[in-house]
Amino acid sequence: MRLVRIGPAGAETPGVLIDDDTFVDLSDVTRDFDEAFFGSGALRTLADVVAERAASGRTEPVGDRRFGAPIARPHQILCIGLNYSDHAAETGQAVPSEPILFTKAPNTLIGPNDDVLIPRGSVKTDWEVELGIVIGSHSSYLRDEEEAAAAIAGYVLVNDVSEREWQTERGGQWTKGKSAPTFNPAGPYLVTPDEIGDVLDLDMWLDIDGARRQDGSTSTMIFNPTFIVHYLSQFLALEPGDLINTGTPPGVGMGMSPQVFLHGGETMTLGITRLGTQTQHVIAHPAAAS
Amino acid sequence: MRLVRIGPAGAETPGVLIDDDTFVDLSDVTRDFDEAFFGSGALRTLADVVAERAASGRTEPVGDRRFGAPIARPHQILCIGLNYSDHAAETGQAVPSEPILFTKAPNTLIGPNDDVLIPRGSVKTDWEVELGIVIGSHSSYLRDEEEAAAAIAGYVLVNDVSEREWQTERGGQWTKGKSAPTFNPAGPYLVTPDEIGDVLDLDMWLDIDGARRQDGSTSTMIFNPTFIVHYLSQFLALEPGDLINTGTPPGVGMGMSPQVFLHGGETMTLGITRLGTQTQHVIAHPAAAS
Repeated sequence: MRLVRIGPAGAETPGVLIDDDTFVDLSDVTRDFDEAFFGSGALRTLADVVAERAASGRTEPVGDRRFGAPIARPHQILCIGLNYSDHAAETGQAVPSEPILFTKAPNTLIGPNDDVLIPRGSVKTDWEVELGIVIGSHSSYLRDEEEAAAAIAGYVLVNDVSEREWQTERGGQWTKGKSAPTFNPAGPYLVTPDEIGDVLDLDMWLDIDGARRQDGSTSTMIFNPTFIVHYLSQFLALEPGDLINTGTPPGVGMGMSPQVFLHGGETMTLGITRLGTQTQHVIAHPAAAS
Repeated sequence: MRLVRIGPAGAETPGVLIDDDTFVDLSDVTRDFDEAFFGSGALRTLADVVAERAASGRTEPVGDRRFGAPIARPHQILCIGLNYSDHAAETGQAVPSEPILFTKAPNTLIGPNDDVLIPRGSVKTDWEVELGIVIGSHSSYLRDEEEAAAAIAGYVLVNDVSEREWQTERGGQWTKGKSAPTFNPAGPYLVTPDEIGDVLDLDMWLDIDGARRQDGSTSTMIFNPTFIVHYLSQFLALEPGDLINTGTPPGVGMGMSPQVFLHGGETMTLGITRLGTQTQHVIAHPAAAS
C-alpha cells in the first residue's frame, strides 16, 4: 500500500492510493496516520478496507490537491549521519564504525512539494535526498533485525534539508543546523515494506534547477534499515509513527568544489525508486532580501 | 501558580496546588497540560478559576497520590550543554561562546519520583540537576529577550540523566546518551514566572544516597533563560509545552576523581529553590543482574 495524506496543510485527509491519481479516503477509519494509528496495529487490516472500497468504486481523484507528509508530526525525527561511505568521504570525515545519531525538530515536517524556507541569517542551506523509515510499533531493546523488520511500518522519501554552518560551526552538535522550519519535506507517500522490493537496491537522485547533484543508490548504505532500527532501540524507545532519516549519498552542496548552497529561487526535485518524487521551491528569508 | 499532574502514569489529572498538600482538579477545564493547553493561552485565565474553586472549597488533598511530570509529553525536549562555567571546567571542556544545543527523546519524560532505569549495557549512567523552561507559545524568530520572557510558561525541576559513554564515545552526537527510557524526571510542579522570584538566584542541589554531589546556583549560568529562548527561536520553532533543560552545575559523576556512576540501588534526591524536590530510586537493568 501507499499511504497518503491529502489536502490543505494542517487539515489533511488520510487515504491510500489505488493508482497515481486515485485514492480511497480513510478519514472515517482513522483520524490521522499518527502515533495512535500505527500503535493500534490498524495498518495490518487496512488493505482489506481499501480493497473493499476500491471494488465498490468508493474512490476519489487526487486531481490538483496537495500532498501532505504521509505521516502526522511524529514523536521524534531521528537521523543517521554519514551513512553512505562516499558521502562521508566528500565531507572529509571518516566512515563511522557504528551509526551516528542526531535529531531534527519534529515540526520541520512538511509536504513533499511545499516551499522550503531559507532560515534568517543562513548562508549554507543544503540538500540531502534520503530514505526515511517510519516505525510501526513501540520498540525498545528489540532482540534482532528480524524483530526490527517487523517494527517498520514503511518507507518514505525525505529531503533532509541542512544548514551547514549551524550544523558544524556553532557548537558541534548537529541538531542546531537541522531543525529550521520546513527543513523536512517527506512524501508523497509511505510505501509499506511488502511493496518496496529490495530496500537496499533503490536508486536515489536530486536535481537543483534541473542539474543532477545527487545520483546514488541505497546499495551503498553502510548500516541498513533493520540494523538501524535494532541498533537505535538499544539506546532509546522508538514510538509508532517515528521517522528515521537514514543518511544521504554523495552530491550535497557542502561536498562540491567550490561549495554550493541554496539562497532562494532554486527548485529542488528529488526521488527514490518506488517512493515517488518531490519538487520544492526554495524561498529566501524576507529579511535576506532587504 | 504551581501546576501539577497527579495520578497514575498515563492517567494524570491536571491541577493547581493551593498548598503543598491541597490541589484544585482542573480536568474539566483542560484535558491535559499539553501543547493545545499552553497554545490556547488558557494559562493566563487559570488563576481566576483556581481562586474561585479554592474559595468555594472545591479542593482535594494530594495525600499519597503520585506526581506525574507537570506537563504532558512535549513536542521536543531541548537541552543546553555546558551552561555552567564550573561544570564545563570539571568535564575538561571550554566554556562555550554560544549555547550548545542537543536533544533528548520526548518519551524520556517521567514523574519526579518515578524509578530511573539503568539502560541495558550502560556502565556510565550519571545525574544532572537542572532548571527546566516550559514554553508557553509558538516561538519563531523572537525579536528580543522581552519577547522571550513572554513566551515562557514556567519553570520546572529536572534530572537530566545521562549515559556518558553513549553521549561522548559513541559517535560524538550527544543525543544517543541522553534518550534512554526514564532519563528525564521532571516536577513535581511547574512554577509560573510570577512566583519563581529571581530565576538567576536559585539554589540547586543533588544527593546520591544522602551524600551531597551537586551544590550550585542558577547565578552561575552562562546563558540565562530569556537569552536561551530568544537564541533557540532563531534556529528552530519552539512549540507550546516544549521543555528546555538549561544545563547543570558542577558535581556530576563524570567530573569526580575517580569518576562515579550509577549502577542500580542508589537513591537520588535533588531540588531547586521554589521548584520542589525529587526522589528517584535507581534500578539496575534486569539483564545486568544475571
